[in-house]
Amino acid sequence: MINRLIKNIEKTNAPIVVGLDPMLDYVPGHVKERAYGAYGETLEGAAETIWQFNRAIVDATADLIPAVKPQIAMYEQFGVEGVKAFKKTVDYCHEKGLVVIGDIKRGDIGSTSAAYAAGHLGSVQVGSQVLTAFDEDFATVNPYLGSDGVNPFIDVCKKEKKGIFVLVKTSNPSSGELQDRTADGRPLYEHVGELVAKWGSDCMGDSYSYVGAVVGATYPEQGKVLRSIMPKAFILVPGYGAQGGKGADLVHFFNEDGLGAIVNSSRGIIAAWKQEKYREKGIGEENFADASRLAVLDMIDDIAGALGTK
Amino acid sequence: MINRLIKNIEKTNAPIVVGLDPMLDYVPGHVKERAYGAYGETLEGAAETIWQFNRAIVDATADLIPAVKPQIAMYEQFGVEGVKAFKKTVDYCHEKGLVVIGDIKRGDIGSTSAAYAAGHLGSVQVGSQVLTAFDEDFATVNPYLGSDGVNPFIDVCKKEKKGIFVLVKTSNPSSGELQDRTADGRPLYEHVGELVAKWGSDCMGDSYSYVGAVVGATYPEQGKVLRSIMPKAFILVPGYGAQGGKGADLVHFFNEDGLGAIVNSSRGIIAAWKQEKYREKGIGEENFADASRLAVLDMIDDIAGALGTK
Repeated sequence: MINRLIKNIEKTNAPIVVGLDPMLDYVPGHVKERAYGAYGETLEGAAETIWQFNRAIVDATADLIPAVKPQIAMYEQFGVEGVKAFKKTVDYCHEKGLVVIGDIKRGDIGSTSAAYAAGHLGSVQVGSQVLTAFDEDFATVNPYLGSDGVNPFIDVCKKEKKGIFVLVKTSNPSSGELQDRTADGRPLYEHVGELVAKWGSDCMGDSYSYVGAVVGATYPEQGKVLRSIMPKAFILVPGYGAQGGKGADLVHFFNEDGLGAIVNSSRGIIAAWKQEKYREKGIGEENFADASRLAVLDMIDDIAGALGTK
Repeated sequence: MINRLIKNIEKTNAPIVVGLDPMLDYVPGHVKERAYGAYGETLEGAAETIWQFNRAIVDATADLIPAVKPQIAMYEQFGVEGVKAFKKTVDYCHEKGLVVIGDIKRGDIGSTSAAYAAGHLGSVQVGSQVLTAFDEDFATVNPYLGSDGVNPFIDVCKKEKKGIFVLVKTSNPSSGELQDRTADGRPLYEHVGELVAKWGSDCMGDSYSYVGAVVGATYPEQGKVLRSIMPKAFILVPGYGAQGGKGADLVHFFNEDGLGAIVNSSRGIIAAWKQEKYREKGIGEENFADASRLAVLDMIDDIAGALGTK
């Protein structure tokens, strides 16, 4: 799957991923009205709203992008119905040829991590049947529990040719409270980076490992160090755009081959129709997905400019 | 909710929680056969299996215990159908008067943690309606992202009178890889313990904070230190029984008031029918839930013996 992700990036010339994190505030009124009209102001109505919103954005951007990253929390908040919309989104993106990174940030001890890995990346045995549940291509994983929590994901990845991105240095302001603590002379995130390099060393695709890392665009200096600690790890970079990360910050996350990182934008793409910049181009609520398409093109351009690949 | 948890513990005289982590291997053949007969060897059949299994165990133990802790991974592995069984289990346990600790180990940045908190402990606004999704009473939370990731849960807890248990020192063998790293002269878990005490200080119930901690029974010495760092935090203690923690190890997790900790057992209770000890008492697959009841009584006795409250 890491090979396919890279192939998709090369095909689109776009090392980006669209974060499908559909908060109801991002959804234009007419989409909500239609869904609430059909299902009421219910969890089902909310789930239908975010599914229709996603579908329009995927339709408008799929040819430009290699991958999407649905954030499961935004679905889970609507309970069972929301989780159904998550699954529908995963399947629809697969139909469109996109790589799907499930942003699930799971992590637990042995058999429990194995269950998460089976449900999100692998399969479960029910009687004589082998069945898949959510079936994303990659998942994000929290490393706080150590190897016991990560290895079950790696086992499934080896078997199913899937991949993970381990949280190393997250994009949020307080990520340093634990991640920056100096342990044995170095910040904790460097130790986690070393673990990622170790875990990934026997998990190689053609040129990169399928054990990747999450490092926030908001911490470019740390990204530079981590790039060198984990040369073969693909880095998933959140925090671009709405969270403050800029194209120029991203240079250090990439290797000299122009690969090695994939940059996420969520709000900046899916809620682009709210930005003055796109409103001025005559885009309103009705054609919100067109704004997302323009925002993807602008993001690709910004990153290509920063990387000197324009 | 922390007050209700304590009231339930005092009423049952049992500082324990039954982990509803229903792996299919734990479920007797006749339960599976009935569910597969009705729904096939499908995700729906698997979900029905674990729901019927849970219900029988809850029916057999509810009068003896204050709380249950369903581990969502064991449901999530069966996809949408599994998540439905999780919700059914939460609701059923509420009907039985049990406090429900959702073992979800979520944790993300700001708005994403807020979505998890809304979905699991709080409510969501859909149009003019305020709706609840999973509606557990407590949730376990991963601290790796720092205050940004935890505060949204605390905000919801304050509003809804719910609670969280933050992972501090987990019960698994490799928990030390990150948690034991020495930072500023002390292991990382102590720093996390201090954060828990800080986060919990303005979240007080009558005698304990509703910001609790997870500390594994397999690390009693660390438990002793953490008990003193977080005197007002309720400690959720996994790792008793099947993972190797013994009654005598638990003493340090409790305060002098005999409170302050709640000990989880999952496999040791729900798969008790597989143990020779209960088989010898004439309990077989057919009356598996009776074995769970006996295992609960044995666990209560073991802990009371260790605490000198027998």
